[in-house]
Amino acid sequence: MRLAEGLGLVRGARPLLGTFLRPRAAVAAAAPAPARARSQALVYAQHGEPARVLQLKDLERAELGHSGVHVKMLAAPINPADINMIQGTYALLPDLPAVGGNEGVGQVVEVGSHVTSVKPGDWVIPADAELGTWRTDAVFSEESLVKLPRDIPLLCAATLSVNPCTAYRMLADFETLVPGDSIIQNAANSGVGQAVIQIAAALGIKTINVIRDRPNLQEVVDRLTSLGADHVITEEMLRKPEMKDLFKKVPKPRLALNCVGGKSTTEMLRHIQQKGTMVTYGGMAKQPVTVPVSAFIFKDVKLRGFWMTQWKKDQPQNKDRLTGMILTLCDLIRKGQLTGPACTQVPLKDYRIAVEASMKSFISSKQVLTM
Amino acid sequence: MRLAEGLGLVRGARPLLGTFLRPRAAVAAAAPAPARARSQALVYAQHGEPARVLQLKDLERAELGHSGVHVKMLAAPINPADINMIQGTYALLPDLPAVGGNEGVGQVVEVGSHVTSVKPGDWVIPADAELGTWRTDAVFSEESLVKLPRDIPLLCAATLSVNPCTAYRMLADFETLVPGDSIIQNAANSGVGQAVIQIAAALGIKTINVIRDRPNLQEVVDRLTSLGADHVITEEMLRKPEMKDLFKKVPKPRLALNCVGGKSTTEMLRHIQQKGTMVTYGGMAKQPVTVPVSAFIFKDVKLRGFWMTQWKKDQPQNKDRLTGMILTLCDLIRKGQLTGPACTQVPLKDYRIAVEASMKSFISSKQVLTM
Repeated sequence: MRLAEGLGLVRGARPLLGTFLRPRAAVAAAAPAPARARSQALVYAQHGEPARVLQLKDLERAELGHSGVHVKMLAAPINPADINMIQGTYALLPDLPAVGGNEGVGQVVEVGSHVTSVKPGDWVIPADAELGTWRTDAVFSEESLVKLPRDIPLLCAATLSVNPCTAYRMLADFETLVPGDSIIQNAANSGVGQAVIQIAAALGIKTINVIRDRPNLQEVVDRLTSLGADHVITEEMLRKPEMKDLFKKVPKPRLALNCVGGKSTTEMLRHIQQKGTMVTYGGMAKQPVTVPVSAFIFKDVKLRGFWMTQWKKDQPQNKDRLTGMILTLCDLIRKGQLTGPACTQVPLKDYRIAVEASMKSFISSKQVLTM
Repeated sequence: MRLAEGLGLVRGARPLLGTFLRPRAAVAAAAPAPARARSQALVYAQHGEPARVLQLKDLERAELGHSGVHVKMLAAPINPADINMIQGTYALLPDLPAVGGNEGVGQVVEVGSHVTSVKPGDWVIPADAELGTWRTDAVFSEESLVKLPRDIPLLCAATLSVNPCTAYRMLADFETLVPGDSIIQNAANSGVGQAVIQIAAALGIKTINVIRDRPNLQEVVDRLTSLGADHVITEEMLRKPEMKDLFKKVPKPRLALNCVGGKSTTEMLRHIQQKGTMVTYGGMAKQPVTVPVSAFIFKDVKLRGFWMTQWKKDQPQNKDRLTGMILTLCDLIRKGQLTGPACTQVPLKDYRIAVEASMKSFISSKQVLTM
């Protein structure tokens, strides 16, 4: 393992770096090598509690070669999936040791002679999960990066490829929605939830937003309303007869987005339109999705799931679709129709503070590591 | 109500008869009318326990008119949905009074001058639910009937339009299955279950069939195997590690058919292929469908429902598709690849015996009224 670290072989997990680094044995034999440039990275060599297993390490940077892209990372958020990946509880686990972080924005410093899609100065974000974004800089493959316009705010860029993309795809891929249609979602105050509100509002789609009751309820209602939410209700309200009044103002939703599970989900499903779709993309309540048989048979509801990571991996043509989506989202950002989440910027070296803050519940500010 | 009965206005529920019967008032005014031919029908004027609320009544038959089809019913089964409809617990309830029965086969006696799709002597089955098949004869609209080849056994014809059609559509409409693929189903000994086994076998699709443990288990296993079942297992087996051995012999199912709900369904879902579909068409356990969030997100399973009645109602082009499916199924019957269910024939007048027998659980013989 020491060898691997010393040679910059610590991975943003995938065979990614392996594709243009020479094999370990070959590198070990190629003495005397010139001293390589070094990077700092948040590395974990075993799964466990992030604050304990993450270490800021000095790594030798991989060679640029013909097809490498040297990227200086600018900002990289801490997402729940990053934490679960380090804890070893996520559905996708990198080979260890690995560099933490799956999202972020960087700036291209230098490119290999065969690289055509990006040039020095460009902003780039990961095309896929497992890039390992919590580091000062690295040499990545061209295929692993997507170019981003530079005229959007840095923190929007750093947080674009997971939550807004998830929101966009769920609104686009499951039901054909037209202006005036409605959707319902729980966890409406989450990163995805807020992106859903804004993208839907930009498309003329009404949103019914379900949140948990909480001490600062009115504050959250006001914030979501200011983002474009048409209706914000608590989970308790979802079970009340007053919902009938709401559906005098807005059509029954054709699409429900579920990030909770348990009772919240069953109740939300009751309000969906005949033949509507519910998409599950999270399970914050740590309870399963429970559906009356009659909803399937007599209401013909469709239940689906969505995972951005899998979407990115799934189709060869996805990089074009990803690029197209990114440009659309950047356009919304430029028009002021999509704002980034509330962020707290934390220097990379203070990562422990950021990691711990990111794991507190009801935290409404995203922790973003800056390099 | 007496007036309605006297004028043959008791419905096979839908506006069906109303479309070519004169309105009640008009009929009442048209005196002196010639005595009309009479039919016998099992009528219910209120919801309740079938043996109590069903009555065999003498009804005047509607006029043939230009577009009527006079059909002598030959045989009509008692299905669970018929019972639930009479009990008032079904999702589709006819206006009362209504004639019971939604399935059956009849023979055309006479047709109106505008009728082109059927002629005297033809066998016909209902194109849709709510025809009211438990009667000696009636005048139906041409649109409400589908012609059937006469070279299949009578009891196959009488029981073709619900269970085999449900099985066929579920195998055809949700996943693209090719020979060698597998499906899994619970309630495999049900009418639909047995049709699924046979149609799948004819298509070269492997079936994994889940049944409840029971005193005569081996007998049921043998019967299903003789129908073409590749694997028959109990619900308990579904939870055991031995399932791994089974999946050395047969690929993981791409499609799961669920008629049970509760634990049976959750366990069945565990064995489905990545991105597979589970179709719920019944809820015998009277428990909801419970799905871990991870199955949606990381396994990308799709949950759908199916209701033959709705399928028939849904699309204008469905009558052609229905006719095509019927011809395909008749072809399987002729080749001996699809057999009818075990049936007990009961004369219409002894309907109470048949109704009561149909409501016993573990009954493996379908009650069919003969006229």
